[in-house]
Amino acid sequence: MDAIDVILTKREGGKLTPEQIDWVIDAYTRGAVAEEQMSSLAMAILLNGMTREEVARWTEAMIRSGERMEWSGLDRPTTDKHSTGGVGDKITLPLAPLVAACGAAVPQLSGRGLGHTGGTLDKLESIPGWRASLEPDGMLDVLRRTGAVICAAGSGLAPADRKLYALRDVTGTVESIPLIASSIMSKKIAEGTGALVLDVKVGSGAFMKTTASARELAETMVGIGVDHGVRTVALLTAMDRPLGRAVGNALEVAESVQVLAGGGPPDVVELTLTLAREMLAAAGLSDRDPADALRDGSAMDVWRRMISAQGGDPDASLPVARESHVVTAPAAGVLTRLDAYGVGVAAWRLGAGRARKEDPVSFGAGVVCHAVPGDEVAAGQPLLTLYADDDTRFARALESLDGAIEVEPGGTPDLLPLVIDRIS
Amino acid sequence: MDAIDVILTKREGGKLTPEQIDWVIDAYTRGAVAEEQMSSLAMAILLNGMTREEVARWTEAMIRSGERMEWSGLDRPTTDKHSTGGVGDKITLPLAPLVAACGAAVPQLSGRGLGHTGGTLDKLESIPGWRASLEPDGMLDVLRRTGAVICAAGSGLAPADRKLYALRDVTGTVESIPLIASSIMSKKIAEGTGALVLDVKVGSGAFMKTTASARELAETMVGIGVDHGVRTVALLTAMDRPLGRAVGNALEVAESVQVLAGGGPPDVVELTLTLAREMLAAAGLSDRDPADALRDGSAMDVWRRMISAQGGDPDASLPVARESHVVTAPAAGVLTRLDAYGVGVAAWRLGAGRARKEDPVSFGAGVVCHAVPGDEVAAGQPLLTLYADDDTRFARALESLDGAIEVEPGGTPDLLPLVIDRIS
Repeated sequence: MDAIDVILTKREGGKLTPEQIDWVIDAYTRGAVAEEQMSSLAMAILLNGMTREEVARWTEAMIRSGERMEWSGLDRPTTDKHSTGGVGDKITLPLAPLVAACGAAVPQLSGRGLGHTGGTLDKLESIPGWRASLEPDGMLDVLRRTGAVICAAGSGLAPADRKLYALRDVTGTVESIPLIASSIMSKKIAEGTGALVLDVKVGSGAFMKTTASARELAETMVGIGVDHGVRTVALLTAMDRPLGRAVGNALEVAESVQVLAGGGPPDVVELTLTLAREMLAAAGLSDRDPADALRDGSAMDVWRRMISAQGGDPDASLPVARESHVVTAPAAGVLTRLDAYGVGVAAWRLGAGRARKEDPVSFGAGVVCHAVPGDEVAAGQPLLTLYADDDTRFARALESLDGAIEVEPGGTPDLLPLVIDRIS
Repeated sequence: MDAIDVILTKREGGKLTPEQIDWVIDAYTRGAVAEEQMSSLAMAILLNGMTREEVARWTEAMIRSGERMEWSGLDRPTTDKHSTGGVGDKITLPLAPLVAACGAAVPQLSGRGLGHTGGTLDKLESIPGWRASLEPDGMLDVLRRTGAVICAAGSGLAPADRKLYALRDVTGTVESIPLIASSIMSKKIAEGTGALVLDVKVGSGAFMKTTASARELAETMVGIGVDHGVRTVALLTAMDRPLGRAVGNALEVAESVQVLAGGGPPDVVELTLTLAREMLAAAGLSDRDPADALRDGSAMDVWRRMISAQGGDPDASLPVARESHVVTAPAAGVLTRLDAYGVGVAAWRLGAGRARKEDPVSFGAGVVCHAVPGDEVAAGQPLLTLYADDDTRFARALESLDGAIEVEPGGTPDLLPLVIDRIS
């Protein structure tokens, strides 16, 4: 077998054999298949697709390229959530301690921001002292003590995916449903969770712009999870407008703490509770009501212990940006549009995200929304506050908001329902 | 502009702008576009195609990546031929001196064997002393003194193509008509010829297996030539059986000398004369009859001068393989099939071609055909003699002839006409 043979099979629209998939993933991980060979193969996969059997085997081969974590020593069932990424999507922060407070264990490996979408690790790192890296033993220790742990994946987990992900990023081969699905699922299955809830975002601020493509991705991922013995369900949820009111690292931590304290924006609360119920049901704990754990403070208790266990101070003041700029309503009327992508790019440009992988993020930068679609606003009323450490950033952030905001007298916003569909 | 932008345009089936093409070829030549980026772009081009305008611009950009040769100082018109490659295709050897003997100048940059197809430079190097590398000044000098020169392209000629060709070879992106056409034409146009005749081979022994794909390639290349002011015509010619009777480096030189001496196999003579007439007509010299130049020995005179001018001894004995093996007719009847690909792979495995780029070729290795399709043969009569320097090579060569030879009592071979079509 050689790389050309595998490439030509897919180039001609054929189905890769299990042997071809196992060989190419192993040889690529070892460096025997060159980056430029994997790159033409990735493009052929993007354009010609993969069958469910091929995606399952591809995922399996990526899992087997590294270690697979194992939590059978715990006295409670494991369950996890993965979001495909959005704007203002801080749900993991209140969700993990909430589900732990209801009796499940949440061993979550998270990532960093990508483009205009935020990353859970970047958000948590805005808490003074908190650190993302843990050894597998450290992960088990935090999980035992608190019921939830959110940390960075070690380099031994699905190394084939780590290499392929970096390659796809620079070769125009990111937007392939089989490659996205196998990348997400190889990491989540290697993480060793027994149950998994996928939050597949739909809309301008998401990778999947349409419900149809999001459904295809969700079905592919649920299929992979089931094939690997992980109880998996997916929700398709709205990402046509930002989730909640805060977009940016420390800003989203503050909003998450509000939710854990029993407040917070209604959409964040609703999605957190919906996902918590799905995670608990998938873990066989559907008799617990997560709304109770928000009300009685037990979720907040887990949050504080979880943050402390990783060196963070849950009582410390969060970083605040040095500069701010207010965007006001251009007219009186109903806010009919607050585009997730526009707001996400604005936050990115304000410093909440990175231009290059190696850049630091600004913890205080971001956007706070004072109105949400459907609200009546007066002309000149503050709609958004932009935060940055450097006031030269406002001009480009404002450019990205061009066309992202619409106010119409008597208008009605045309929004996706918060939860669009459920796939199991 | 960046590489991702160009890749996404082609990935989504769009048309690359002239600016995108110029940028990506230049940046790739400089190393600013990485090999793995060009690789995914090449796969997207292979699967999604390019328009005539895109191919023309792509070719132009590859020409401009290096120097363009120029022959205006000569007192005769330049004309050249390019074959897409086949089995036993030694036509360049008698053709270049023949056309020079008729008054044109032939500045031919040639290549080496690729897979089962032979290369003109490998064949000529079997002549003791002959060398393929010449400086541009040396090329002009030989052309002035003899009217014809066959040599290797210098590294300054279309360096983008040189790099891309090597990349395509290892990334499964060879078989793209736009990429094949622009690769051939960028080299031929940079070579500076005023007229060009393309011999596009069709059949099992050729890159293009069908007349339809060969016609598409021919039309694409003629279009590029015309767009660049080179008078270009293409012939589609048969490569379902070997051309002539000799396949292998020194064996083909010997057959070429027979043609120059007024003998040789009828198909080689016919194709040589047909291509010579096309080359002369394209150069504005259609009043000369090349058949005269074969008869009166003037083509042979040019051959001897051309070989001597590059250090070769036209009177030296050619290398002979140490071992031989005869393949006999399995039954009495008509030879209805002698498959070009099977014979080409046999010659390759006997040592006439290379397994890896850096391997040497065996000059004496190859196949001589004692019968051609349509001949009546007796059972046990010699059909082929295989030549190799090492008798362990015969077993694998014979394997490649499995199914390549058919003898049927009263049968009639189903052959392509020698010249299938002409495209101008």
